[in-house]
Amino acid sequence: MSVTAAQGFTAAGVAAGIRPSGKPDLALVRSVGRCVGAALWTANRVQAAPVLVSKRHLAVAEPQAVVINAGVANAATGARGVAAAEATAVAVAKELGLSPEEVLVLSTGVIGAPLPVDKVLAGVRAAALDLAAAGGGAAAAAILTTDSGPKEAVVRATGFTVGGMAKGAGMIHPYLATMLAVVTTDYPLGPGEADAFLRPAVETSFNRISVDGDCSTNDAVVLLANGAGGLARDSTSDALFQRSLDAVCASLARQIVEDGEGATVLLEVVVTGASTEEEALSIARRIATSPLVKTAAFGHDPNWGRVLAAAGSAPWNGGFARLDCDRLTVAFDGVTVFEAGIATGRVPELSGAACRIELDLGLGAGAASYLASDLTYDYVRINADYTT
Amino acid sequence: MSVTAAQGFTAAGVAAGIRPSGKPDLALVRSVGRCVGAALWTANRVQAAPVLVSKRHLAVAEPQAVVINAGVANAATGARGVAAAEATAVAVAKELGLSPEEVLVLSTGVIGAPLPVDKVLAGVRAAALDLAAAGGGAAAAAILTTDSGPKEAVVRATGFTVGGMAKGAGMIHPYLATMLAVVTTDYPLGPGEADAFLRPAVETSFNRISVDGDCSTNDAVVLLANGAGGLARDSTSDALFQRSLDAVCASLARQIVEDGEGATVLLEVVVTGASTEEEALSIARRIATSPLVKTAAFGHDPNWGRVLAAAGSAPWNGGFARLDCDRLTVAFDGVTVFEAGIATGRVPELSGAACRIELDLGLGAGAASYLASDLTYDYVRINADYTT
Repeated sequence: MSVTAAQGFTAAGVAAGIRPSGKPDLALVRSVGRCVGAALWTANRVQAAPVLVSKRHLAVAEPQAVVINAGVANAATGARGVAAAEATAVAVAKELGLSPEEVLVLSTGVIGAPLPVDKVLAGVRAAALDLAAAGGGAAAAAILTTDSGPKEAVVRATGFTVGGMAKGAGMIHPYLATMLAVVTTDYPLGPGEADAFLRPAVETSFNRISVDGDCSTNDAVVLLANGAGGLARDSTSDALFQRSLDAVCASLARQIVEDGEGATVLLEVVVTGASTEEEALSIARRIATSPLVKTAAFGHDPNWGRVLAAAGSAPWNGGFARLDCDRLTVAFDGVTVFEAGIATGRVPELSGAACRIELDLGLGAGAASYLASDLTYDYVRINADYTT
Repeated sequence: MSVTAAQGFTAAGVAAGIRPSGKPDLALVRSVGRCVGAALWTANRVQAAPVLVSKRHLAVAEPQAVVINAGVANAATGARGVAAAEATAVAVAKELGLSPEEVLVLSTGVIGAPLPVDKVLAGVRAAALDLAAAGGGAAAAAILTTDSGPKEAVVRATGFTVGGMAKGAGMIHPYLATMLAVVTTDYPLGPGEADAFLRPAVETSFNRISVDGDCSTNDAVVLLANGAGGLARDSTSDALFQRSLDAVCASLARQIVEDGEGATVLLEVVVTGASTEEEALSIARRIATSPLVKTAAFGHDPNWGRVLAAAGSAPWNGGFARLDCDRLTVAFDGVTVFEAGIATGRVPELSGAACRIELDLGLGAGAASYLASDLTYDYVRINADYTT
């Protein structure tokens, strides 16, 4: 159900012929009644045309619908690309009786190729006709590229529901990498309020995952909230809504890493005892993105030497994050392998589809965690063969 | 000849039984007459015992000899590791009639394993007996780990010679990754002067290469200068010496990347027109270390979209380096593929063992270049199977 799990949302997914495979490649999501929304965008200096256009729209209107195409990223396409994204929004607006500024446009796929506007516009017409409260699954399937399957998450709380869909696969990294997510809720939020809930949810989910450390030109997380659940809101329900939104984002983020290109092992890096939270995060990210740690994970090798080498070179404040080898503890899947400056001699057996690496720095109260996929033959195969 | 190409240096390489393969694994280099020296060390917060010990030695004496073992990094080995490195220096000093502080100790290999001190000390005795002006090649062979072959470089100038050896293979990255290099010269330098020549040579060579973005616990570049060439020195000869030293370091750095673990393509990233040199370097490094760019290089795919995505997310000043897509030009092997915000439609044929990616940002005069290897099946195989 994903984006149509909450009341008052409809969605559709159609094959518009943008992807050469003929698979579904255009999704449309709308709120039936008026809603409010927010979005967070890639921090990349190279921003795709749909990102530029959607940011402009979001600055002047509350979003009522989101259109997403897969197959072509419409990035690095110049003024023509911006015009194509605008034309897409205009077409959606016309079909749904909205103003173009009330439509957000997202794209994912090959960078540099022109968006086939005619196909997109025909797809928009078809999707508008297909919009249904049962369309969440079709929408979630139509936003994928190299993903092996759809990513959906739903949390049902008393009085409201939060549901979402995402696409991931490659180029997954903080600052919102090639990753699109749309989350909808029937929880009531006022104009301008959605951002304050979305931001912390993204910070601890989508911004703490990595498949390959690359950061794309297109990525976005959108939240739409229409209040159709009819709940009378208070500070307790706000807190519950935040937790529910966090959970949906965390689930989608985890699904993205689990489905990382070529992934066989889900690596969870947990750093505690750092001097500051920022240093904990930098160390966790450095470990989770180290090719040597990631290939060791693929080989089920509890290689704490590589973990130490990565931890010791985590960028922070123009230098490296603080760390004292003699106070540091490293554990793999709960087995302590390094303590007080030397190896314990214990050798954990790593054979599962998940591997948890814990570092306690013994310096302070800073803590952070990070999810990553391993680095495998298939990652190389997929990315050496595929023109993204 | 490498480290014995310059006059007044002897070297040896022996099999001390540290590497299970039985290959040569201990090298000794000394200056016959008194020399001066300098060294640059890994910036990793986790520093191997030999690095800690050698830094202490260098602070109180001019180095006269360097002993290097392969097979065991003597890193993350606590107080016992420090004692083992000290014992190695004491043994070398005794054999050569030096004080222990005049000996630098370098190690490379598996992190965490204890140094087999008895084997090392026996190896030191054997190497001391073998020291010869013809021993440069044997020394260069005895410092390797997963390298496919020795790395040597010699520049002969009027009145002096600069020669060096290096080991590389994995964990190659700026801040001196798993990389050891020893460079010797018979050019005359005074006490304390070697550092000022070594630092800029390393900055534009070893600090601008990457195999996998990982940064090790052990790495070092050592320069020894004994003046045995007998040259009368002036500012012109100083400049010529700097250029010669730069050339030796650049050659060794390039050999390290060419022999990167699993490497099939040498990637050269050249960034010009950046606002500042620091931003040019950050962008060049980001592109050269992007797994998506590196897998594309392996696939001979001129994937400028991935280059743009990497360039747009180069860390600088707490954010990303400045870049304007509309003013940017990208060329692969001299063929311009992206210009003024859009693709040119030209498709370069990449089939060689080298690939040159040029970005002109069109913003300022900042320029920098970076060398990297591609990301291949063999990189994954070597690092998933091997406990470093």
